[in-house]
Amino acid sequence: MIFNRKLQKIITSRSPSGATQSHQAFWISLDSDSLGHLLLVFSSFEQSKREGGRERITGSEVCKNLGFSLFVEMGVLGDAFTQLVIPLAAIVGIGFALIQWILVSRVKVSAESGYTDSLIEDEEENVQNDDVVVKCAEIQNAISVGATSFLFTEYKYMAIFMSAFAVIIFFFLGSVNGFSTKSEPCVYNKGNMCKPALANAFFSMIAFLLGGLTSTLSGFLGMKIATYANARTTLEARKGVGKAFITAFRSGAVMGFLLAANGLLVLYISINLFKLYYGDDWEGLYESITGYGLGGSSMALFGRVGGGIYTKAADVGADLVGKVERNIPEDDPRNPAVIADNVGDNVGDIAGMGSDLFGSYAESSCAALFVASISSFGISHNFTAMSYPLLISSMGIVVCLVTTLFATDMFVIKNVKEIEPSLKRQLLISTILMTVGIAMVTMLALPSEFTLFNFGTSMTVKNWHLFFCVAIGLWAGLVIGYTTEYYTSNAYSPVQDVADACRTGAATNVIFGLALGYKSVIIPIFAIASAIYVSFSLAAMYGIAVAALGMLSTIATGLAIDAYGPISDNAGGIAEMAAMSHKIRERTDALDAAGNTTAAIGKGFAIGSAALVSLALFGAYVSRAGIEAVDVLSPKVFIGLLVGSMLPYWFSAMTMKSVGSAALKMVEEVRRQFNSIPGLMEGTAKPDYATCVKISTDASLKEMIPPGALVMLTPLVAGTFFGVETLAGVLAGSLISGVQVAISASNTGGAWDNAKKYIEAGATDHARSLGPKGSDPHKAAVIGDTIGDPLKDTSGPSLNILIKLMAVESLVFAPFFAVHGGLLFKIF
Amino acid sequence: MIFNRKLQKIITSRSPSGATQSHQAFWISLDSDSLGHLLLVFSSFEQSKREGGRERITGSEVCKNLGFSLFVEMGVLGDAFTQLVIPLAAIVGIGFALIQWILVSRVKVSAESGYTDSLIEDEEENVQNDDVVVKCAEIQNAISVGATSFLFTEYKYMAIFMSAFAVIIFFFLGSVNGFSTKSEPCVYNKGNMCKPALANAFFSMIAFLLGGLTSTLSGFLGMKIATYANARTTLEARKGVGKAFITAFRSGAVMGFLLAANGLLVLYISINLFKLYYGDDWEGLYESITGYGLGGSSMALFGRVGGGIYTKAADVGADLVGKVERNIPEDDPRNPAVIADNVGDNVGDIAGMGSDLFGSYAESSCAALFVASISSFGISHNFTAMSYPLLISSMGIVVCLVTTLFATDMFVIKNVKEIEPSLKRQLLISTILMTVGIAMVTMLALPSEFTLFNFGTSMTVKNWHLFFCVAIGLWAGLVIGYTTEYYTSNAYSPVQDVADACRTGAATNVIFGLALGYKSVIIPIFAIASAIYVSFSLAAMYGIAVAALGMLSTIATGLAIDAYGPISDNAGGIAEMAAMSHKIRERTDALDAAGNTTAAIGKGFAIGSAALVSLALFGAYVSRAGIEAVDVLSPKVFIGLLVGSMLPYWFSAMTMKSVGSAALKMVEEVRRQFNSIPGLMEGTAKPDYATCVKISTDASLKEMIPPGALVMLTPLVAGTFFGVETLAGVLAGSLISGVQVAISASNTGGAWDNAKKYIEAGATDHARSLGPKGSDPHKAAVIGDTIGDPLKDTSGPSLNILIKLMAVESLVFAPFFAVHGGLLFKIF
Repeated sequence: MIFNRKLQKIITSRSPSGATQSHQAFWISLDSDSLGHLLLVFSSFEQSKREGGRERITGSEVCKNLGFSLFVEMGVLGDAFTQLVIPLAAIVGIGFALIQWILVSRVKVSAESGYTDSLIEDEEENVQNDDVVVKCAEIQNAISVGATSFLFTEYKYMAIFMSAFAVIIFFFLGSVNGFSTKSEPCVYNKGNMCKPALANAFFSMIAFLLGGLTSTLSGFLGMKIATYANARTTLEARKGVGKAFITAFRSGAVMGFLLAANGLLVLYISINLFKLYYGDDWEGLYESITGYGLGGSSMALFGRVGGGIYTKAADVGADLVGKVERNIPEDDPRNPAVIADNVGDNVGDIAGMGSDLFGSYAESSCAALFVASISSFGISHNFTAMSYPLLISSMGIVVCLVTTLFATDMFVIKNVKEIEPSLKRQLLISTILMTVGIAMVTMLALPSEFTLFNFGTSMTVKNWHLFFCVAIGLWAGLVIGYTTEYYTSNAYSPVQDVADACRTGAATNVIFGLALGYKSVIIPIFAIASAIYVSFSLAAMYGIAVAALGMLSTIATGLAIDAYGPISDNAGGIAEMAAMSHKIRERTDALDAAGNTTAAIGKGFAIGSAALVSLALFGAYVSRAGIEAVDVLSPKVFIGLLVGSMLPYWFSAMTMKSVGSAALKMVEEVRRQFNSIPGLMEGTAKPDYATCVKISTDASLKEMIPPGALVMLTPLVAGTFFGVETLAGVLAGSLISGVQVAISASNTGGAWDNAKKYIEAGATDHARSLGPKGSDPHKAAVIGDTIGDPLKDTSGPSLNILIKLMAVESLVFAPFFAVHGGLLFKIF
Repeated sequence: MIFNRKLQKIITSRSPSGATQSHQAFWISLDSDSLGHLLLVFSSFEQSKREGGRERITGSEVCKNLGFSLFVEMGVLGDAFTQLVIPLAAIVGIGFALIQWILVSRVKVSAESGYTDSLIEDEEENVQNDDVVVKCAEIQNAISVGATSFLFTEYKYMAIFMSAFAVIIFFFLGSVNGFSTKSEPCVYNKGNMCKPALANAFFSMIAFLLGGLTSTLSGFLGMKIATYANARTTLEARKGVGKAFITAFRSGAVMGFLLAANGLLVLYISINLFKLYYGDDWEGLYESITGYGLGGSSMALFGRVGGGIYTKAADVGADLVGKVERNIPEDDPRNPAVIADNVGDNVGDIAGMGSDLFGSYAESSCAALFVASISSFGISHNFTAMSYPLLISSMGIVVCLVTTLFATDMFVIKNVKEIEPSLKRQLLISTILMTVGIAMVTMLALPSEFTLFNFGTSMTVKNWHLFFCVAIGLWAGLVIGYTTEYYTSNAYSPVQDVADACRTGAATNVIFGLALGYKSVIIPIFAIASAIYVSFSLAAMYGIAVAALGMLSTIATGLAIDAYGPISDNAGGIAEMAAMSHKIRERTDALDAAGNTTAAIGKGFAIGSAALVSLALFGAYVSRAGIEAVDVLSPKVFIGLLVGSMLPYWFSAMTMKSVGSAALKMVEEVRRQFNSIPGLMEGTAKPDYATCVKISTDASLKEMIPPGALVMLTPLVAGTFFGVETLAGVLAGSLISGVQVAISASNTGGAWDNAKKYIEAGATDHARSLGPKGSDPHKAAVIGDTIGDPLKDTSGPSLNILIKLMAVESLVFAPFFAVHGGLLFKIF
């Protein structure tokens, strides 16, 4: 109350004598960390704006009027408020995730449950109820155990890699100034002293490990909830499609919120802990923090690639023998690869995707923070403005929370046709709400005008410029999402055309599918280009970084609708394996078809944001490496561009071939079991699931190394031997080429999958004329689907990480390359 | 003899008093155009160098010693000699082509021929000899008539387009200076006056039309000789594989030499005619000449795309019904689409390819000439040095002539296994000989040191630098050729692995094939990058242009081994249709399998040279548009890069879909005929070939418009609305992305085709385990082959033209964009 009155006085008085008073008041609020005080301060500010009498005035105007130059570059929010609101948002996010989890856990997967009550009216099963539940529990357990065991094995390998790479980071960065422990003059904040390079090396290493750990956690928790929810979704499908949808969607939301909140919280805590050492050296502080992004994406790379190979080796192998040779349905329990296939969905599409998007989120935050730290926010130590990226993410959690309620509580799905519109509505609602949210954060957190670093020069930016940057990123994401939906959903003509091409066989199906993928690149690229042009023009690389954050700000919702897909897929598998009725399978199939589309949308978001993120990281790298221009007319840059744009192909060749080879091994094993286990086809003997799981595990662990090495080593080799300019070319080249390959690969795959589902579902006359299952067109569609598997789930989405990871790695190692890089050109 | 003595005197005397004498002697030789005199002058120079006594001295040293500054930047060759040697080489090339043609024409395709004599000992046919010949003649005639009629229809449409575009060129370029007819200050040659922009507009238009005409001629003549040679190859195959090979190869050589020589001759004559008007204004002269490249590539675009759609619609349609549904062999005369298929080979792979490579050749020459004209060669009016690109091409004709003799006269092919090595040897021999040739031309034509224009600055270059530029282009071509061979020939493991993947069905075949295509990009990109780095570093954009010329210098040989492929393919088709024995078909199949590989090699060359050419054109454009740096960090440039790298996908989507749709129509027609014509399957009734030809014709003419418009309009739209910088980004983006898509598409397609042939041929135990024809793995291989058709013959190779054409169009319109471009940014 004291503060409240004091501030009102300052604002209304506006006399030069009041100036000192206001200054004091502000600092008191900054020094105090108590919640009550701060909220009072904030509310008083807000109140004063409303009640201020003659005119609405913003915080910075107040400060200007009061004559404090320091305050000219400050927004309305006090630093202490910022310090509070960010962890609060994270905690709210985690809390909401827990609530969703509790709601999901109410569905019991045990035979003793009092289930029968609620099922009486709806029950359509002729199978003994308890039997089904027991069977579901068994299958769920097998999937969960398989997934957990794979992830633990994977993490064991990666712990070794991460430790080794942490040491590399420390030695490369430490060597920049010969491991000196003395303070050095700052690079950007001229005249001041900054912490030694050795300290940056150490803290970068720590941030790297923290990023890796958070990424691991994100993936692992996602997998846990997904394997917890799959059987529950199946069981709920007995009550109707709406109930099943809610269960799957809530589970996706658990993952989305946990990931968004965890990422924010760990980053926030790290910054504050690092600050204890760095103090006023924000340049070094935020340079080190970029290690967080590198750690996150490094884990994501192996998670995506390893998980992608795992899931598709199993999927392709299972389909080739099961569907094509033995003519048994998908997910039939007689198929020895069926458990591996379902485990794969969880380790690839869930854990891999989670790590990937966490990586994007961490990197875009780090890129924005780094650019801000060398701009006026950092130099004038305006913590609230510096934390703008984190505040956007905090707002995002709140917005997504509200959005989720629309799907879970405000509308109820009653039939299959409502699923896709409901998911699409989620995207639209979150985008609209978030636009308002961004406007609020921008007006409150940022001073009305400030200067940003722009490659050696500086530019003056107004706060509403940044609003447009974040908003255009957000809306570009929506455009990408909707375009992806159009090209991959079987409700529209593109996929129907592909399905129709199955009439003349697999070849035309593949030709049409490839053409569809290529075509689907057009609109997303224009959307990304527009976002880049606007945000780049308004606020240089900072604009790009916050545009990326804008696209990722609704990550919790994006992940919820994305994770929902593999959960439904698993649910369908469990229904099949538990020998539930055809109706249940139809319902889960409908959920799954929508899931294919949302998965493609998720991949669209992931690649769109990856493009923006890596451009922002690229900008930060260029700044940090001291490059003045990346001129295409310089041979060093051009060869970098050319080779860089080849890397996505090299990488895809490796991952596609890995899936192919692993699938061949899987096929042999599945055939062997069918041939050597008597009674397997008749259903009287059980297949040996474990061997198939082992084949997928071994293949993915072995095969993820070469593509991983390609991505991790390229920046090191290019930077060390060819120097910072060639590396800049490589980054730009891989970015502009990788985006296209990734979008076309994931949409082609999604379209093939849904073309097959379109024929199977037979919902229209056209679809029925192509079916039923087992017809020649359907067989052709199955071939397309199988080809699409590695495209959409292994090579395509891994490319996001390729472009981001190379950029963030270059940024982290930029100080080393700037000093010691370009050996080859130095020698010759 | 008089001159001889005079020059010897000058060189040996080396007194200041001799200086005037030498000067006169030189000018006398320049004024005289008589062959005898000039050869004397040249030989005397050469002799003087050998006999010169105390030391070896070069022309420029002589001049230096004599104290003539004008002569410091001159090579050994006099301008008059240059004026003579270029048309001479062209005429030699044409003459050699005619000789090859006469040799081919000795094989008679008429029943009355005295053939039986030579066949007595070798004849293995049980069919009446005359019957077979008559049948072959009939089929050949049908193919030839079909191809000619299609090309005429295509040319009619394109004449309209070319006329319209010529008018656009005239108006756009004429408007640069408001259609003023007054001379203007030169842009580069400061202080001098140049011809008005209106004149440049007019002559650019003329050059454009000339380029278009030459391209048409190149394609048409190629088609004519190919349809002349196909049946002759079939008939010769009765005598043995060696004879057939020679016939096909000689026919390819006719095309190769005609194209190389024509291109050179027309360009040479145009320059000399234009000079009559331009006089000393070489800036305007060579700016206008770039229209020649634009004209060549514009025709090539429609030739490639139209021909590509034609051939693949027919091929895919014929295969889908014939091979897959009706289980009749390829090229079976009962298949209604079989004539359209064979016509397609000639209009697509022959005429289209010819136009394409002619376009590359014309563009790289124009790019080199343009850059030279604004460098010291142009400013000091050193015609011989200016004509360096033409001299390289002249030398190339001579070298290829010698190389051809190795294949046709020095070694005789005795069995199937020798075919591929023999073709590979052609590449190696021509490359080695040409390296020596380049060294000679460089030392003779260029001054030992000169200055080149390098984006606003100038750089000093030594003549041996240029040798390295041309040579590295040449050798990079060889590396690309050999890599392509490795990835597409079924003699090596990559294709065998793809064939092996057919064991588990079409899906794994496609996955492995796509991975192979992606992987095959790596080495070519490193080769191109090395060539770019070296030539760029040594001689800026001029270096790139001559590197491209180096790669294309052996174009006659390249085209010979390339055109040989479709001729063999046709020969096989004719053998099948004429119901010749299995043995003949085996021989033509072996020729064809090698032809698939050489076709892929040809495409590799085409794309490699297109990359270099368009980079050179890009450089020329940047110079002409007055851009100082193409900085990736500028938003205008970056969005250009991003959108540019999307264009190859957009373009491929269009062309792939066109092929798919046209093929579906073809399938319906073929099915209709099989169902409605009684006795067709039994061979008692004839199919209606004409309707299938019409479907292909209509589809290709209609479907070539959208992709054509995309390519032609993009530079105009980007330049006019977004300005020269964004356009620069678009060009660079489409270049670096298009190269990758094109290489991977054409190699994937080639590999699938040869994987199928590998299984069909059954030459090894492994291959036999996958076969025979009709087995499941073979069926999977056929699906792969069909998918590869549009990739390797439509979308892939058309991309070369996309990247080249956009670059040359930008160069031609650069004066307009520089003045009036960027409307959108000017408004906002």
